[in-house]
Amino acid sequence: MNQELDEAKELIDQHLDENLEDGELSPYELAQHLKTLKKHDEELFAKYLEKLDPEILGDVAIELPDHMLKDVIDTLPAEKIVEALEELESDDATDLLQYIEDIDEDKARELFNELDKENQNEILRLRSYDEDRAGAHMQTELFSAHLEEKLGSAVARLRQEKQEGKLENVSQLFIIDKNSVLQYAIPLEDLILFDFTKTLKQNIESTQIDHYKPHMANDMDLMQDVADMFQEYDLNVIAVTSSTGILLGRITYDDIHDYIQESATEQIYNLAGVDDESEEDDTLFKAGRGRAVWLGVNLLTALFSSSIIGLFDETIAAYVALAVLMPIVASMGGNTGTQALAVTVRRLALGEIEFKDAKSVLKREVTISLVNGLIFGAIMGVIAAVWFDKGMLGVVIGLSMVTNLFFAGFFGTIIPLTLRRFNIDPAVGSAVILTTFTDAIGFFSFLGLAKWILL
Amino acid sequence: MNQELDEAKELIDQHLDENLEDGELSPYELAQHLKTLKKHDEELFAKYLEKLDPEILGDVAIELPDHMLKDVIDTLPAEKIVEALEELESDDATDLLQYIEDIDEDKARELFNELDKENQNEILRLRSYDEDRAGAHMQTELFSAHLEEKLGSAVARLRQEKQEGKLENVSQLFIIDKNSVLQYAIPLEDLILFDFTKTLKQNIESTQIDHYKPHMANDMDLMQDVADMFQEYDLNVIAVTSSTGILLGRITYDDIHDYIQESATEQIYNLAGVDDESEEDDTLFKAGRGRAVWLGVNLLTALFSSSIIGLFDETIAAYVALAVLMPIVASMGGNTGTQALAVTVRRLALGEIEFKDAKSVLKREVTISLVNGLIFGAIMGVIAAVWFDKGMLGVVIGLSMVTNLFFAGFFGTIIPLTLRRFNIDPAVGSAVILTTFTDAIGFFSFLGLAKWILL
Repeated sequence: MNQELDEAKELIDQHLDENLEDGELSPYELAQHLKTLKKHDEELFAKYLEKLDPEILGDVAIELPDHMLKDVIDTLPAEKIVEALEELESDDATDLLQYIEDIDEDKARELFNELDKENQNEILRLRSYDEDRAGAHMQTELFSAHLEEKLGSAVARLRQEKQEGKLENVSQLFIIDKNSVLQYAIPLEDLILFDFTKTLKQNIESTQIDHYKPHMANDMDLMQDVADMFQEYDLNVIAVTSSTGILLGRITYDDIHDYIQESATEQIYNLAGVDDESEEDDTLFKAGRGRAVWLGVNLLTALFSSSIIGLFDETIAAYVALAVLMPIVASMGGNTGTQALAVTVRRLALGEIEFKDAKSVLKREVTISLVNGLIFGAIMGVIAAVWFDKGMLGVVIGLSMVTNLFFAGFFGTIIPLTLRRFNIDPAVGSAVILTTFTDAIGFFSFLGLAKWILL
Repeated sequence: MNQELDEAKELIDQHLDENLEDGELSPYELAQHLKTLKKHDEELFAKYLEKLDPEILGDVAIELPDHMLKDVIDTLPAEKIVEALEELESDDATDLLQYIEDIDEDKARELFNELDKENQNEILRLRSYDEDRAGAHMQTELFSAHLEEKLGSAVARLRQEKQEGKLENVSQLFIIDKNSVLQYAIPLEDLILFDFTKTLKQNIESTQIDHYKPHMANDMDLMQDVADMFQEYDLNVIAVTSSTGILLGRITYDDIHDYIQESATEQIYNLAGVDDESEEDDTLFKAGRGRAVWLGVNLLTALFSSSIIGLFDETIAAYVALAVLMPIVASMGGNTGTQALAVTVRRLALGEIEFKDAKSVLKREVTISLVNGLIFGAIMGVIAAVWFDKGMLGVVIGLSMVTNLFFAGFFGTIIPLTLRRFNIDPAVGSAVILTTFTDAIGFFSFLGLAKWILL
């Protein structure tokens, strides 16, 4: 495996060599190569960590897993980390400091105290928001100007702030009035066509004013709603304002990008009984513990379903074919319910449906489940009747499958809708609740009908 | 529900009233309100459809479900739809024409023939790519210039193309040489700082040239890889070139946005045995049929697992407690496997792991499953021993749970990795394959051990 090590070392060397034009790596790539280094050679890893420029160190540190971030804060001098934090955009600096605090609270406090006043205030403000609010995801660095300012002077400021490394990724000029209330947002593709010698007001008034009405979000808006706005209006940036309209910051397409990827991961994991935050960590313990919690819940519900089987032990003893067939009823119910559940959870997440659409969504899902219940109930009825050479057994399993698949569709839809109604994430725990119903109804309907009809 | 109708009508009226500054709706919103209109009043719907400006008609049509798009092509004159197609960016026009073709092939051909030559050629080129390739998602409208052109002249062209409605959403100027090979890409935030009277070459050479090396994708690159590049480099646009470097088009952040949302939906649906394309349609038939296919596969595998129970019918007849407990072993195995499966599928999709990482991923997943198997095997062993007052029954279920959870972790990881190895979507069908294993191993190990130890 030394080839892997040599390759990673060479690529980082190329990146560090300023004379090479083609060697530049993204922070993500650098983090990957550093991982390889650490896997094979701790000392080499530490050496290269020190070589990293503070300008990119922060971006790389954000990409590192916890145990390697710990190496960063243990190995590098505090001044260098402080410099790296100050190089980051405010939202990223806030994130990185949070990651450091999760590892070493004292160190985080020490670093925070070393930051300059402006950075401290920005971080304090961003940390005052809940993680699901727009304010927590905004960056305070942006390009703004007053209505009465000449465009040429605003552009000169842009040049300076870009040269000082204070501003990047600019796509709009935000125009505020004298109370810092946001009035207009002008995309650079229009700005470049404006007259640089005139004020912004003069420039705007010579065009269609309402074209520059800004898209904006309130700092307390849910991040989910902001992501929906990006999608709906194909935005690449949105202004974040206070409730009184004062311009506070901006959220850019890459934040939204990360947000929707993370939300999708969360949905997939939660549907499978996996906690997405526990999995992020590189240690097995947290991930294993997170999964054990849901397995524990599943064990309790499985015990409940099994106790239903226990009610019919005499029926089963008299007719063992029931034990052979009953998992089929439960399995088909579980599958049908999971289909309705996945569709409902995802459509809720995408904003395609809401609780108020419950009636039409239920109608759709229950119809599909019921029709499939009739089809597979009939098929399985014939199979069971032939397999065990007993017509009434076919009737029993057919009827119980229709019943179970009907309720599977119903519960697969109503569970996530209800969770959403009470502002609970519709993906969390819904699969476990659902299979409790489909197992219980499956076993009860099948064994109950068998007891009643067959014995 | 006439309140809903009145509200939708009023909002569209406001949108159509050009004197109102605040009434503008997004194409998505317009489509939603048109749906409401159609639900309550078909005639009113048709009336408002005709009122829509061709400039926005295409964008709205893309957002409509199939049966309403059918209304559009049946109601509106062909010339108006052709105008709407020509107003759209090339990638959107291609999509819309494809949707129309799915509904009415002759109509699509008729509309295509009415398009001007340039639009026809663009659509033909975009349709020549497979849906999973970058070329299929690019738009050919972009802002480009030659190295020797004066910036002022390039900007004048931008102004003209924007006024003609040919170009929007510009964030970079792409610079090509005389063979149309892409050389540089300059973000507008830098371009606005350049000297308009100098050529682009002069401007670039007065700065750090390597700063403007373009991010580019090949037209035959997988869209997944392009989306990964957007994420890794925080891009808002990428140039698409031919294999010889000729600039063909661009892919923007909003295309990527849509792509990652659709990919996540596909993963969630496929894991649940739902076909994402069938669900998109508003008719129940396709969605129901898509789900029935997977339920059919599940029935076959459930029959296989059940036939394993059939091998032990005498054991069960002698000891009915086994029938009560066996679903617990299968359920815990299924859950453990699903956890490993969801994590592996998602990490593959996010590019965090590849097939070559199989060994370390397997080690991680199997360790977690085995440890949880030991924990829950022990817990369930004690519960079963007490419940049925038989110590050896506890040993049997404990051992079979350790076995089943171990293999659940193994198969939950190896199935998606293997599918990926053979370039099959790791989410498709993997859940059904997995539960076949966990059910079969669960039943076989539990009943087999019971027969061997208890009888």
